Amino acid sequence: MDVAIVGGTGDEGFGLALRLAGAGHRVVIGSRTPERGEQAGQRVRSILGGDADVSGTTNAEAAAAGEVVFVTVPFEGQAETYRAVKAHVRDGAVVCDATSPLATAVGGKAWHVLRPWHGSAAEQAAAILGERVRMTAAFHSVSAGELQAIDRPMDGDVLVCGDDPDAKAMIGGLIEQIPGFRWVDCGLLTQARIVETMTALLISINRAYGIHDSGFRVTGRESWGDPRH
Amino acid sequence: MDVAIVGGTGDEGFGLALRLAGAGHRVVIGSRTPERGEQAGQRVRSILGGDADVSGTTNAEAAAAGEVVFVTVPFEGQAETYRAVKAHVRDGAVVCDATSPLATAVGGKAWHVLRPWHGSAAEQAAAILGERVRMTAAFHSVSAGELQAIDRPMDGDVLVCGDDPDAKAMIGGLIEQIPGFRWVDCGLLTQARIVETMTALLISINRAYGIHDSGFRVTGRESWGDPRH
Repeated sequence: MDVAIVGGTGDEGFGLALRLAGAGHRVVIGSRTPERGEQAGQRVRSILGGDADVSGTTNAEAAAAGEVVFVTVPFEGQAETYRAVKAHVRDGAVVCDATSPLATAVGGKAWHVLRPWHGSAAEQAAAILGERVRMTAAFHSVSAGELQAIDRPMDGDVLVCGDDPDAKAMIGGLIEQIPGFRWVDCGLLTQARIVETMTALLISINRAYGIHDSGFRVTGRESWGDPRH
Repeated sequence: MDVAIVGGTGDEGFGLALRLAGAGHRVVIGSRTPERGEQAGQRVRSILGGDADVSGTTNAEAAAAGEVVFVTVPFEGQAETYRAVKAHVRDGAVVCDATSPLATAVGGKAWHVLRPWHGSAAEQAAAILGERVRMTAAFHSVSAGELQAIDRPMDGDVLVCGDDPDAKAMIGGLIEQIPGFRWVDCGLLTQARIVETMTALLISINRAYGIHDSGFRVTGRESWGDPRH
């Protein structure tokens, strides 16, 4: 699958690029400058070895290249990034926003959150991109360090929100190609109002215990099956 | 330990009464009428057998009897309940609020939340009770049905918030006497703004998969130890 990672030079995006290229996808890393994008692509290739199909370019060109477009940028640059890629994203693309509205965006604490006007960062993204794309939100509570530690399987669930069941299942399929990961359908895109804030809770837990890699797993004894539409 | 459960005739409070009485604590169940409180106490005794030290009475009398006071009431009655017990709670008591501000309080959906004026239901409770007590928040994401199924160990973590480390550790100690449970220190009481909303996310997940008992476990490979103060 053609996967774009807008903001792919950051820790989370770079980890995602490693994992998805490692799963055999064609990955295009986007950055604000083509040079930084290309450098990140080169780093992925040198880590994964010769077979990895990874390149790097601008965010706009990366967005144009993806059937699935992950956006992994800090909240303070999120709206600007979406406006920059808006004209380039393909019709019908599945966009996956990983933004958490941490208060660090305005000089606050990482265990505090802001409340975006649209309810969540993902809904802000959807408002900018419009109806042409299928918006999802995921990967908020995934440790960037663990994503980059490609010799270890991941540990935890990836919480996915979105209004389009097929788009969520497509993101879920990519998630489950990463060893150790399971995806959990959390409902409509508006549920990102809750999921996005859980990043700040993990930071608070990390702080309480002096650790760096806490995450969430969803428990439940009953048989799950596939999510109902 | 002397444990009071205000609102102990509801599903969550009744389950907690069963588990804590089962762990050997002296439990006083509170209800709006003494008759309903006493009936619930009787039900616990008949389920657990003769040794269980459980009685039932009004919320106010129960609150007066507890070194630790759990409050398990719906959000729509939460403020009124705290005002009713305020004069009766002991100085220095550890109070544990389990309220989630679900939108059902105003006729909305159970997977939506309201935003309490104080930030969280727990902070609203703290504002009513004042400095005399040590406020904590926990048990939001614990299935009432699973709590009541006393033949099975629990499955999942209990997320605990509060400003007083010793109070959190006391609640944590009670939690870990319930088989299968682990407590996780989530930081200050303000973090309840996030934790309380996670109940609505579990309801959304339950709805997506047609299940009833989802919960959260915190993952993390690093060594945890005790929370740092």
